[in-house]
Amino acid sequence: MTASEKGMGSQKGRRPQDSMAEMTIVMMPTDANLQGNVFGGTILNHVDLIAGLVAKRHAPYANVVTASIDRMIFVKPVYIGNALILTARINYVGRSSMEVEVTVEAEDLEKGTRVTTGTAFVTMVALDKNGKPVQVPALIVEGEEDRKRFEEGKSRMQARLEAAGRRT
Amino acid sequence: MTASEKGMGSQKGRRPQDSMAEMTIVMMPTDANLQGNVFGGTILNHVDLIAGLVAKRHAPYANVVTASIDRMIFVKPVYIGNALILTARINYVGRSSMEVEVTVEAEDLEKGTRVTTGTAFVTMVALDKNGKPVQVPALIVEGEEDRKRFEEGKSRMQARLEAAGRRT
Amino acid sequence: MTASEKGMGSQKGRRPQDSMAEMTIVMMPTDANLQGNVFGGTILNHVDLIAGLVAKRHAPYANVVTASIDRMIFVKPVYIGNALILTARINYVGRSSMEVEVTVEAEDLEKGTRVTTGTAFVTMVALDKNGKPVQVPALIVEGEEDRKRFEEGKSRMQARLEAAGRRT
Amino acid sequence: MTASEKGMGSQKGRRPQDSMAEMTIVMMPTDANLQGNVFGGTILNHVDLIAGLVAKRHAPYANVVTASIDRMIFVKPVYIGNALILTARINYVGRSSMEVEVTVEAEDLEKGTRVTTGTAFVTMVALDKNGKPVQVPALIVEGEEDRKRFEEGKSRMQARLEAAGRRT
Amino acid sequence: MTASEKGMGSQKGRRPQDSMAEMTIVMMPTDANLQGNVFGGTILNHVDLIAGLVAKRHAPYANVVTASIDRMIFVKPVYIGNALILTARINYVGRSSMEVEVTVEAEDLEKGTRVTTGTAFVTMVALDKNGKPVQVPALIVEGEEDRKRFEEGKSRMQARLEAAGRRT
Amino acid sequence: MTASEKGMGSQKGRRPQDSMAEMTIVMMPTDANLQGNVFGGTILNHVDLIAGLVAKRHAPYANVVTASIDRMIFVKPVYIGNALILTARINYVGRSSMEVEVTVEAEDLEKGTRVTTGTAFVTMVALDKNGKPVQVPALIVEGEEDRKRFEEGKSRMQARLEAAGRRT
Repeated sequence: MTASEKGMGSQKGRRPQDSMAEMTIVMMPTDANLQGNVFGGTILNHVDLIAGLVAKRHAPYANVVTASIDRMIFVKPVYIGNALILTARINYVGRSSMEVEVTVEAEDLEKGTRVTTGTAFVTMVALDKNGKPVQVPALIVEGEEDRKRFEEGKSRMQARLEAAGRRT
Repeated sequence: MTASEKGMGSQKGRRPQDSMAEMTIVMMPTDANLQGNVFGGTILNHVDLIAGLVAKRHAPYANVVTASIDRMIFVKPVYIGNALILTARINYVGRSSMEVEVTVEAEDLEKGTRVTTGTAFVTMVALDKNGKPVQVPALIVEGEEDRKRFEEGKSRMQARLEAAGRRT
Repeated sequence: MTASEKGMGSQKGRRPQDSMAEMTIVMMPTDANLQGNVFGGTILNHVDLIAGLVAKRHAPYANVVTASIDRMIFVKPVYIGNALILTARINYVGRSSMEVEVTVEAEDLEKGTRVTTGTAFVTMVALDKNGKPVQVPALIVEGEEDRKRFEEGKSRMQARLEAAGRRT
Repeated sequence: MTASEKGMGSQKGRRPQDSMAEMTIVMMPTDANLQGNVFGGTILNHVDLIAGLVAKRHAPYANVVTASIDRMIFVKPVYIGNALILTARINYVGRSSMEVEVTVEAEDLEKGTRVTTGTAFVTMVALDKNGKPVQVPALIVEGEEDRKRFEEGKSRMQARLEAAGRRT
Repeated sequence: MTASEKGMGSQKGRRPQDSMAEMTIVMMPTDANLQGNVFGGTILNHVDLIAGLVAKRHAPYANVVTASIDRMIFVKPVYIGNALILTARINYVGRSSMEVEVTVEAEDLEKGTRVTTGTAFVTMVALDKNGKPVQVPALIVEGEEDRKRFEEGKSRMQARLEAAGRRT
Repeated sequence: MTASEKGMGSQKGRRPQDSMAEMTIVMMPTDANLQGNVFGGTILNHVDLIAGLVAKRHAPYANVVTASIDRMIFVKPVYIGNALILTARINYVGRSSMEVEVTVEAEDLEKGTRVTTGTAFVTMVALDKNGKPVQVPALIVEGEEDRKRFEEGKSRMQARLEAAGRRT
């Protein structure tokens, strides 16, 4: 059992809230697909950017790169003029990999309503200057909620490794 | 004395925190000027966008347009790879105008340090479908801090109107 | 058993090669992340665009939107100056959904080498003008290869529906 | 009294017209805000770019950075399809700072009319390779008009320094 | 012989200087090709935009579209940090077509030197709302220089029509 | 007579199909001019990019730059929502120059129709690290078609050199 699994604070460990990020951006006409909605590529672009930011905050000395994005489901269309709200936090860290959960919401600024349009799990890997994986700080998980996220993230990470293995 | 000046809650009034927004974006190579720093125009662009978002949240039924941006000072250079953190909130509302304060911070993701690089006061105006100014909801100011911001915003707005008058 | 499953040609059915697309683009400095590699968001953007093109060719009368992108793995970094080669084809069609497989390769133009950097399965849905799902042409699958892809795509689609159901 | 204040020509001094710049650009659909007008951030972006160009022409050996932009007022909306005409010239130079005045006009290409939509005073600072302020050439002011601009620019610069002082 | 060929002023005619445009833009890192120079596509983009602006000024009531760009030669490389200076003017008008000459210069802002990097002849056509060619105002050519440009433009236009004919 | 003219294969020579490229991209709202069509500059941009890709594939060790683009005729308007299909291949190589032919087609994705909208001949030059022209591999031309293209490309190249000479 590692320090991060026990949720014990070490001086070098970091808590999920130390790296969390939030980003609110209004969708402009340039983000439109041919139906006049926001197209998927724009949303994925922002998902990747905010996941990278959160991982970099957790492992500031490393280069962080995207290893994979789990199935991204576009539950509802996002419209031009909506605000896209992304919140990202780390659920789980392995030796050099981090699972970042990104929640995507769309706010209808005319009606004042807000709906979740998707959730993505992004796996980021920390590399040193030579492109070799490098250890990241432990994740200090303190409450019930954090612990649950950590365990579920760990399961998903194992499923990813198994799926990758099966491909070989 | 209006409801918003007295800080009295009305059902149609909105509090500053109802429209606040935060945005964290990593500065990419495409944001660079020729010295390799983030150039001023990029920052002003984001300042204008987030001020418009906040004003739209306060007056959802209106078209909101930028009337002016007060002197914007670039205290420190922002570097590529920094995270730019913008937080925006309404200080004061007149009949159809709103003063939005935008704080710009730069976070050095390698060092984990964060500095304020500028503050901007943006005046947004609410318009109806024909481009005529339209009344905005009162601003419900509850604590000492909110009240102080409201009074200072009111003074700045009067100074702006006087300065505009002197031009004529 | 539907016409598309039997691979029987109908006048309205279309073959995978009728909608296939290929796209070769050189990665420019503006596509770089902070490490100087092509960042994931750029690649996902192109994946989404080419999948939409292929789906639109299969169902020209419909609006096609992205419903989901299966786990996207970034096997190897893509470098600035590489050519990114995307090839996309339809594997399977249901009533209104289509599975598009996108292969992403990177070509090192200096060395003349070419490596696969990822494969993505994108689910596109055909909608009518009111945003309601609309039937798409059957997929005419003729050879062994096409048939295998169709069966595997069908299994993945069922797994997706089950996974989506489990969420509810 | 410095050479630049006396308006005396020195071999190293430069006249305002030596660094002036003009730029005419048609506003395209990608410059639109949600109301279909040109949004403020786009205009500010161009203001910052042309001010930097003019300052660089005056002090070619230096890195020039934006120190501040005075209150920018958007007098009238600019529409998509209008030509935006920016003209920029130096009014005043201090030791290492330059005041650049940028006039923004919008030309309605259908009607052939042209209106001033704003004026901005941008303060640029010249830096050496280590980021330290460096002296800029004197400004050779020859006619009545140039002299008046120089004096007014000097007053504004003093007001800016006082305002900055008051903040501390 | 038409009014425009005789250079006689008519109330509806316009002189070349009535539609001339100049544009100075600093080449930024985002304009770079892989060698770090400004890539040809960026320059062609600006050539097309300024030619469209000039043609629209000459025929404000019409939609103007690019019919062709004559051989564009890139005489010298343009570098990032250079100012690109485009000047555009009408040489010749036919019934619904206009020849716009665009001169492209690059200014080395460090050295203060300026070189011509190319000249392009762009043929623009005026269309009505239904996409049919529509007559443009005569070109009032007054001096020796204007007359010479008009005659040469006329020859080139005839050569273009012959070349197009030979293709059929 | 050089190897490339005789069409003899040498180990270092390359055939046209070794460097060919195809690119299919859907035209998005951001590619629109003011009439809502795709504007010429966007198309030229892609023509330049794909020509550079093909030349780089033929001469991987060299820096390739655009020397000229022959008269580019826009035969028909391309509409937003169309797929733009560019195919590019080398017709002729000289010592350090290459003629790349780019065919531009527009596919109406609603109707399933496809029309040629233009053909461009782009001259690319191979340079070494010091910017000096460097020899490119011979072009192995095998069939009747390839041979015809080679001869015609050679004629056009001579015409270009003569035209350039006449300018001096």
